[in-house]
Amino acid sequence: MEQASDALDIYRRQGIGFASGFGARPALLIVDFVNGFNDPDRFGGGNIAAAVERTRDLLAQARQHALPIAFTRIVYADDGSDASVFCLKIPGLRKLTEHAPASQIVPGLEPLPSEYVIRKQQPSAFFATDLAAWLAARRVDTVLVAGCTTSGCVRASVIDSMSCNFRTIVVTDCVGDRALAPHAVNLFDMGRKYADLMTCAEVVAKLRALAPRDRVAGTRS
Amino acid sequence: MEQASDALDIYRRQGIGFASGFGARPALLIVDFVNGFNDPDRFGGGNIAAAVERTRDLLAQARQHALPIAFTRIVYADDGSDASVFCLKIPGLRKLTEHAPASQIVPGLEPLPSEYVIRKQQPSAFFATDLAAWLAARRVDTVLVAGCTTSGCVRASVIDSMSCNFRTIVVTDCVGDRALAPHAVNLFDMGRKYADLMTCAEVVAKLRALAPRDRVAGTRS
Amino acid sequence: MEQASDALDIYRRQGIGFASGFGARPALLIVDFVNGFNDPDRFGGGNIAAAVERTRDLLAQARQHALPIAFTRIVYADDGSDASVFCLKIPGLRKLTEHAPASQIVPGLEPLPSEYVIRKQQPSAFFATDLAAWLAARRVDTVLVAGCTTSGCVRASVIDSMSCNFRTIVVTDCVGDRALAPHAVNLFDMGRKYADLMTCAEVVAKLRALAPRDRVAGTRS
Amino acid sequence: MEQASDALDIYRRQGIGFASGFGARPALLIVDFVNGFNDPDRFGGGNIAAAVERTRDLLAQARQHALPIAFTRIVYADDGSDASVFCLKIPGLRKLTEHAPASQIVPGLEPLPSEYVIRKQQPSAFFATDLAAWLAARRVDTVLVAGCTTSGCVRASVIDSMSCNFRTIVVTDCVGDRALAPHAVNLFDMGRKYADLMTCAEVVAKLRALAPRDRVAGTRS
Repeated sequence: MEQASDALDIYRRQGIGFASGFGARPALLIVDFVNGFNDPDRFGGGNIAAAVERTRDLLAQARQHALPIAFTRIVYADDGSDASVFCLKIPGLRKLTEHAPASQIVPGLEPLPSEYVIRKQQPSAFFATDLAAWLAARRVDTVLVAGCTTSGCVRASVIDSMSCNFRTIVVTDCVGDRALAPHAVNLFDMGRKYADLMTCAEVVAKLRALAPRDRVAGTRS
Repeated sequence: MEQASDALDIYRRQGIGFASGFGARPALLIVDFVNGFNDPDRFGGGNIAAAVERTRDLLAQARQHALPIAFTRIVYADDGSDASVFCLKIPGLRKLTEHAPASQIVPGLEPLPSEYVIRKQQPSAFFATDLAAWLAARRVDTVLVAGCTTSGCVRASVIDSMSCNFRTIVVTDCVGDRALAPHAVNLFDMGRKYADLMTCAEVVAKLRALAPRDRVAGTRS
Repeated sequence: MEQASDALDIYRRQGIGFASGFGARPALLIVDFVNGFNDPDRFGGGNIAAAVERTRDLLAQARQHALPIAFTRIVYADDGSDASVFCLKIPGLRKLTEHAPASQIVPGLEPLPSEYVIRKQQPSAFFATDLAAWLAARRVDTVLVAGCTTSGCVRASVIDSMSCNFRTIVVTDCVGDRALAPHAVNLFDMGRKYADLMTCAEVVAKLRALAPRDRVAGTRS
Repeated sequence: MEQASDALDIYRRQGIGFASGFGARPALLIVDFVNGFNDPDRFGGGNIAAAVERTRDLLAQARQHALPIAFTRIVYADDGSDASVFCLKIPGLRKLTEHAPASQIVPGLEPLPSEYVIRKQQPSAFFATDLAAWLAARRVDTVLVAGCTTSGCVRASVIDSMSCNFRTIVVTDCVGDRALAPHAVNLFDMGRKYADLMTCAEVVAKLRALAPRDRVAGTRS
């Protein structure tokens, strides 16, 4: 895309887009991989199903290396008492209630006991949740982000992850979007300004290279 | 752009992109219109200078209607003690210190006494600042957003503004970016998911239509 | 208590303890009135039962005046995945899970549909919750606080309520503590520094004096 | 004090008041030790001067062990644009502006370059600041708290420190208050519910026992 390469030239000239790097204590954050976002007739489509599939591998590796693992779901109250401005923009969000099938995590990515499931009402996994505190308690320095949508809740979560001072890695083949153009341009934006972009294979190679003591990342609480 | 129209079709089919509306008590937020972001040799360029120019009109109108007005600047400590992961991605940010010319608000938009100037270190005007509390104290229900860059601190601030439950309006000709493609696609993303898009002229017409009692929006503190 | 009167003298001399006042759009926040905190064999005792009883009256009045109403419960995950440092200080908190009888709101104060029930893991009702955004969406300017314990979650919530720029009223006979000395000294501290102290009867008189238009406090979202 | 011992009995019976412990990577937080709070004619008095004196030793030790060190000051804008509800309760706070002598850190505790000075407007050092992110970036697991006042900004900061999942230590002879009764009862409350209480000497002994690798606590950013 011609415009993106123009932007890239400008960013390079202005010194935007260095790597923030991969630290010693990563955690995995899986954003909104729930049934409703993996169903093209609801909020899904595009490359989301492929990203879910690849995230199975990433999750297995994260478990093997004993990373702290957190999932998010969008969950609104049954009675609409916490409906927000976000629900004005996208009214269908209100149907994502605690027990709605559409708001359950997709098959193949079910959380294990002790993995943390965050209920959120806004785009970012960090907004009005204790995710930052949960990560700090585990002395995490790097957040690996999978999930959907790239142009929505992934990007919002990535901005906050970096703002909370976690080095942030967007796992490019483990994030997906219902539309491919927003997927691509948001990857570009995030890679320039907030996070490093790595494939699942590159992340797995990094995990294997971590020193054993760093792999034991359980909570000290 | 073909891809954008594809995305638009998908969003419409999935019920994404309704208006969140314009409330009764707006405030104006001007993001990062500082010298360094209005200088093509630093972080500026593109349509930022044009957006600054148009924002002069918007600011004059906001003052005439007695809106609460807040500005942001990026300001890092002189000694680097608060340098963050953001500074790894964009090392030049560290030079935006309290007294650096590059971090002063641009000529023509100087804040008046009682207008609020927020120093921030992260993309969002709301992150680790008391902006949400400042707006709540003024019983604001709508945040009008001008500033730069569209694809950076404007978008991050817009996501948080909506997450804080303020109806959010991106004033399309009062936001700018160093590169035009990211400007366009980020306007698209914000308009679909987080905010309503209005021109300066449309916003001014709305302000004129506000009932007089709503115009007196000073703090009650 | 002699020491308290000494403190009062110092505070007066130093200009600490003015009234912050009662605004035009109050909301009611009821903190942690759940079975486990109303049971002397668990976390209850002292004057908590009396405070619950009086809060029934306050809640009825708040409903009659159509105030926004929020309740909090402490709720930890069944599998302990969100256990925190707070649970190290008070290990029994971990038993307050979603369906545990001890974490259900006490009889007589059951929330109605559209009243907001906040699940929290920390002392403050505002920490890692969207309560501030929920209140801002309703353009609340004053938070009336009932609940328990005065020296614990009430005080933590009151500090944050004021920090979020809501005028804050501690309803003195609607807050309770398992031990009476901490109840008294924390009322004193809060009344000097963070909130105004009013009895339920005084609050009800204020609600009756509100202009009708201010009584309609429903959300605009 | 008879009432406190009654409370203690209740707390023990209810399982309140276990130790949260001292981790491997402590940081030091010094709250509001500024001239105005060390002057009995303004906001000082009581045992604050003694706490300042003892904090000199603590600070020297923290520097020797290379702990991350943060200070807070209360700083309001010169033009009152960020005056808050807190300023209604204590109007004199508005005079604590950037260059006011009363808001400068006291002699003997001047920060060194790279030590972090946080400007805050509310009681807690964490509210609307990036302190939590700053500590997380340094992988801190324990926050040592000195400063004043015990019943005010120290307590508010301690609640948030624990809520952010940092093990929190109140250094009992390094915190002070203008009035001794609130000092004592707030130490009691904090020690039961939020933090462990240790003297400066006990903290220093702990620092000496840390493994050398844990002592190098500089930022990785």
